[in-house]
Amino acid sequence: MGCAAGWLGADGGHLPWSDTWGSASSRATRMTSSEAMDTLGQYKITVWEEENFQGKRCEFLMECPSIMERGFRKIRSIKVESGPWVGFEYPEYQGQQFILEKGDYPRWEAWSGNSGYRTEHLLSFRPVKCAVSYWDTTEGGVRAGRASSRQPSMEAMRDRLKDDLHGAWDGGVRYTQRYNHNDSKVILYEAENFQGHKFELSDDYPSLQAMGWGNKEVASIKVNAGAWVAYQYPGYRGYQYVLERDRQNGEFKKYNEYSSQAHTNQIQSIRRVQH
Amino acid sequence: MGCAAGWLGADGGHLPWSDTWGSASSRATRMTSSEAMDTLGQYKITVWEEENFQGKRCEFLMECPSIMERGFRKIRSIKVESGPWVGFEYPEYQGQQFILEKGDYPRWEAWSGNSGYRTEHLLSFRPVKCAVSYWDTTEGGVRAGRASSRQPSMEAMRDRLKDDLHGAWDGGVRYTQRYNHNDSKVILYEAENFQGHKFELSDDYPSLQAMGWGNKEVASIKVNAGAWVAYQYPGYRGYQYVLERDRQNGEFKKYNEYSSQAHTNQIQSIRRVQH
Repeated sequence: MGCAAGWLGADGGHLPWSDTWGSASSRATRMTSSEAMDTLGQYKITVWEEENFQGKRCEFLMECPSIMERGFRKIRSIKVESGPWVGFEYPEYQGQQFILEKGDYPRWEAWSGNSGYRTEHLLSFRPVKCAVSYWDTTEGGVRAGRASSRQPSMEAMRDRLKDDLHGAWDGGVRYTQRYNHNDSKVILYEAENFQGHKFELSDDYPSLQAMGWGNKEVASIKVNAGAWVAYQYPGYRGYQYVLERDRQNGEFKKYNEYSSQAHTNQIQSIRRVQH
Repeated sequence: MGCAAGWLGADGGHLPWSDTWGSASSRATRMTSSEAMDTLGQYKITVWEEENFQGKRCEFLMECPSIMERGFRKIRSIKVESGPWVGFEYPEYQGQQFILEKGDYPRWEAWSGNSGYRTEHLLSFRPVKCAVSYWDTTEGGVRAGRASSRQPSMEAMRDRLKDDLHGAWDGGVRYTQRYNHNDSKVILYEAENFQGHKFELSDDYPSLQAMGWGNKEVASIKVNAGAWVAYQYPGYRGYQYVLERDRQNGEFKKYNEYSSQAHTNQIQSIRRVQH
């Protein structure tokens, strides 16, 4: 099946995808799921079969459970126009995870941080849940944060986003305390099933040990708000685990719930997902 | 020259290093430079010639301009007990840079994020400047931040660090707003020599484009406080540039001042160095 403008039905939902970017309104009238409505305009990713944005390409506005069903043999470069997304090694969101925030990824090393073996597969991907921005002007200025419970309408968000980004360029120097870090919270536990010593975080930590965590393992994790990426090594390297409040209710009782591929509970750095 | 306990004179200073960790006081009495005094107890790194902390090993408390002068052919695993450090591809702090924060690095992929070519060299390293913690109890509780001008004595810092880390474990859940992010500041510029549009940051950004930066290049950078790592790709991947307030007065006028190896001004993510 090739990559062409249109909507495709698939297991569990409707998948909008196209090889060109058309008008949002014409698409919107063809959407059938509320999830698609929420996603439209927020998420856009383009993938290429070759490095440096060469070869066969396809744009997606929603999740893709198998790039091979779109006639791709592989993905070698990616541009994220609006995200974040999470890529997976295998179809159906299995295997290693790769966080994909807005930007250009001209070759696989730009997203893969694994070290156990060098996988070059990225065969499925989907938007990250729980990393939705909202804009709150009640506290004396535009403030951006991450929350799932008090979002304005999509239209209001888009308008504010547009204003906000223009503001960023018009004002010269601007202090970018735009994200409200208190909105993302995660608790790390020393033992499985949320037992043992625990530590609640609301900020990024490239070294959990430098922060005071006693060892290089984390046995269970509870995400109270937002979306996080935990990494095997310090400095955001090695295996990646994308942990979302809206997946498994944010509760990851054992390391093998971090991802379908996790075979160690080694976690040495953690950070919030940017949106 | 092998790795054995003692001090070695070297160009530009004295290099304390040993193959075992003795008492700090016995070392302190043998120090001859004020830089060494400042560093003692703050920085400790152990390197191994083989992966997974095997083979020849050596501990360092201060910079190492060439690991080959210590009888090593290569470095394949690293433990940072206290940092941060920055590793370099070549001797004398040349070539690609690798940020090394506290934690375990069992193989080179744990620190190397390059993608242009897969270097496995890490032949010199030194402590990161300007990423020194201080503890400020004047604002109703222990607060940790990054500053170079208002540090307490090393003894006071060590005592407070010890208390602080114990506190972290004794208190169960604890909100870790320990680092004062306002203490790290960097300005990105669209054009060389600090010209064009600019953006001042005091927080981590895994995607500069998601934050509002208009393109994937940064032409010049001014570090006003702290130490930062800029990365070629989003999500802290690709080439790394460690940018310190105390190196070149924090002023990086062109991309080739980011590092001796930089051959592109592509920067898509940036974060503070943790200490």
